[in-house]
Amino acid sequence: MALIVHKYGGTSMGSTDRIKNVAARVAKWHDAGYQIVVVPSAMSGETNRLIGLAKQIMDQPDPRELDMIASTGEQVSVGLLAMALLAIGKQAVSYAGWQVAIKTDSSFTKARIQSIDDAKVRADLDAGKIVIITGFQGVDDEDNIATLGRGGSDTSAVAIAAAMKADECLIYTDVDGVYTTDPRVVEEARRLKTITFEEMLELASLGSKVLQSRSVEFAGNYRVPTRVLSSLTDPLMPLEEEASSGTLISFEEDTKMEQAVISGIAFNRDEAKITILGVPDKPGVAYHILGPVADANIEVDMIIQNQSVEGKTDFTFTVSRGEYQKAMGVLEGVKTEIGAASVSGDAKVSKVSVVGVGMRSHVGVASQMFRTLSEEGINILMISTSEIKISVLIDEKYMELAVRALHKAFDLEKE
Amino acid sequence: MALIVHKYGGTSMGSTDRIKNVAARVAKWHDAGYQIVVVPSAMSGETNRLIGLAKQIMDQPDPRELDMIASTGEQVSVGLLAMALLAIGKQAVSYAGWQVAIKTDSSFTKARIQSIDDAKVRADLDAGKIVIITGFQGVDDEDNIATLGRGGSDTSAVAIAAAMKADECLIYTDVDGVYTTDPRVVEEARRLKTITFEEMLELASLGSKVLQSRSVEFAGNYRVPTRVLSSLTDPLMPLEEEASSGTLISFEEDTKMEQAVISGIAFNRDEAKITILGVPDKPGVAYHILGPVADANIEVDMIIQNQSVEGKTDFTFTVSRGEYQKAMGVLEGVKTEIGAASVSGDAKVSKVSVVGVGMRSHVGVASQMFRTLSEEGINILMISTSEIKISVLIDEKYMELAVRALHKAFDLEKE
Repeated sequence: MALIVHKYGGTSMGSTDRIKNVAARVAKWHDAGYQIVVVPSAMSGETNRLIGLAKQIMDQPDPRELDMIASTGEQVSVGLLAMALLAIGKQAVSYAGWQVAIKTDSSFTKARIQSIDDAKVRADLDAGKIVIITGFQGVDDEDNIATLGRGGSDTSAVAIAAAMKADECLIYTDVDGVYTTDPRVVEEARRLKTITFEEMLELASLGSKVLQSRSVEFAGNYRVPTRVLSSLTDPLMPLEEEASSGTLISFEEDTKMEQAVISGIAFNRDEAKITILGVPDKPGVAYHILGPVADANIEVDMIIQNQSVEGKTDFTFTVSRGEYQKAMGVLEGVKTEIGAASVSGDAKVSKVSVVGVGMRSHVGVASQMFRTLSEEGINILMISTSEIKISVLIDEKYMELAVRALHKAFDLEKE
Repeated sequence: MALIVHKYGGTSMGSTDRIKNVAARVAKWHDAGYQIVVVPSAMSGETNRLIGLAKQIMDQPDPRELDMIASTGEQVSVGLLAMALLAIGKQAVSYAGWQVAIKTDSSFTKARIQSIDDAKVRADLDAGKIVIITGFQGVDDEDNIATLGRGGSDTSAVAIAAAMKADECLIYTDVDGVYTTDPRVVEEARRLKTITFEEMLELASLGSKVLQSRSVEFAGNYRVPTRVLSSLTDPLMPLEEEASSGTLISFEEDTKMEQAVISGIAFNRDEAKITILGVPDKPGVAYHILGPVADANIEVDMIIQNQSVEGKTDFTFTVSRGEYQKAMGVLEGVKTEIGAASVSGDAKVSKVSVVGVGMRSHVGVASQMFRTLSEEGINILMISTSEIKISVLIDEKYMELAVRALHKAFDLEKE
């Protein structure tokens, strides 16, 4: 019997009426003969409420105790969903992560799943029950609750699907799939029927909020067929139609060969650029600059070091805007220490990226991208590349223009 | 080193500021050299909110799933209190019932504690930590969360104190102790410095809301010295003064011998009386009347069966007012079945009880009680007695009058 894992986000679980909708949808799949495991998030707003309470008590909440608190949102969700299924005559049972057990390491608030013991879940499924498991959390070797971090329920769902060798993991969310770019920016943006997990990974880590990037890594590592689809459709729509809707994250690269070179365009408004000028070019300079930044718990995105001229070089990197002021403060100290000339920054920059596995076998993607931006008069501040993506940093005021121009230049509106 | 268990109710935990107050009080005790285990309730209103969500989904929520949901309120409380202690430099750690583990049976929503494994808690205490444990809940043999029912955190605290052989269990609440009667009804009501656990049991089960009756049973069975005291005092008040405040539930009956015959007067407005008249007096009649009532999950309080006259008898019992209509419905069916003449009821009655272990060795308490009520012109509708209490059912409009008259007749205002 085919096993399907459903994951529902906080918006889908946002009220008791919506939870009843989720139950109707899950029941439809069960009626059609599938074994179903459901992984719901906390009701929307609940995790923020809990973290808010914690912050009223400690500015920097103790991570173990924060996990104790934050994990309760999902526990409420699973109980409510189990009841909604029981109320319509289905057999259902809910479990918290520790009850399954989903074992994690002890990195509270950002734990990683180590193993899943599915014996109890398997027995329930075989007895005809729908099993509902808390997302976002597990338990360490000392029986402490540990959460996986924001968006962790996606990872829970994919990890459970992997551990149980599920036939497919369906991520129900408030968008109806993965688009070539954000339809709010480019009207012609088109939903992708399939995307490779590598492309999805780049899109996820580039700020496209559809799926948490760790869940995509998991899907990739364990080859879990994962589909992103809408939870806003009629829960009683025909199952065949629903089962082929959304976007499938695939592992069959061959099927991509006939498709476009570029799959999508991602962008991130939340960037700030910092440059440290006139740095004496000695071994270890990157470490001396970025070490203190990392120590201050600031995440760095793009990094560029210029060619050295007369023993001096410039060093530029980007951080998220929320950490810009803090990073500038750290750099002022670093400047004196390493004898650099000055530090300058710009918090009004954005990143635009083109992503596609087709890039591997097609030359000219970069030059096409740069030509398009040049024709629009957009100056490129930084460039960073990986095997399947090219990112540029530009003035934030040109961001929408750049995305629209690139979407058109790469013919993304066409199937 | 002396071990003290503190229990704080929902009002004491009602906001993050109040939780900081609790932390300050707990820290004071720890600073004074005590080992401290704290058992907090959910923040006030939280358990009702969670049950409300469940009832939006199922009119009669599934008990196992309800416990999954309802238990989260305490989990949030323990995490917040641990943080509040960490924030003021104390070592603290929180545990959910299953982490300790507190083992219960599988009677979801009204589980009973079976055993407590205190190894982990003991190790933490010996390492200098303050340990915070969720009230109201435990875990059954199949790792299902089970709650103890409303007010169950009192029971958790006393059970933990018993299991760990604590020197005293302090129940902090929003009243400053146990009174001879409700001060809102009798101005002269006096706080008792000590009360025996048997008296406390009668007062608790008679509707005095200070302590849940199961917690008193536990205190009695395991001889846990338990003190009820106020959480509304200044948390930094001198410890010696705080340690002797409130009311101590004692097991030293000898000390009571010199005290009053009657310790207090309890009352319960929430009563309704049902009489089934002209019942053919055959063996099993009580069962045929009360069986269907119990099957409808209605709790019966007082029961009287009259002397049979000409093979017919009358049968009277009381239920809480909320179940009056339901019980009347059940009785209409029973009437036909057993061939009784008629069913009548009165939902405007109240119960007044005098309680005291001194009653055992003093005759005349009943006659004193009945004379007092007679002098006030109050008609007694039903009487029920136990070894240390006498309860009468009267018209609700005389309730306050009866309580005041009895309080005076038994000299309860005098120390």
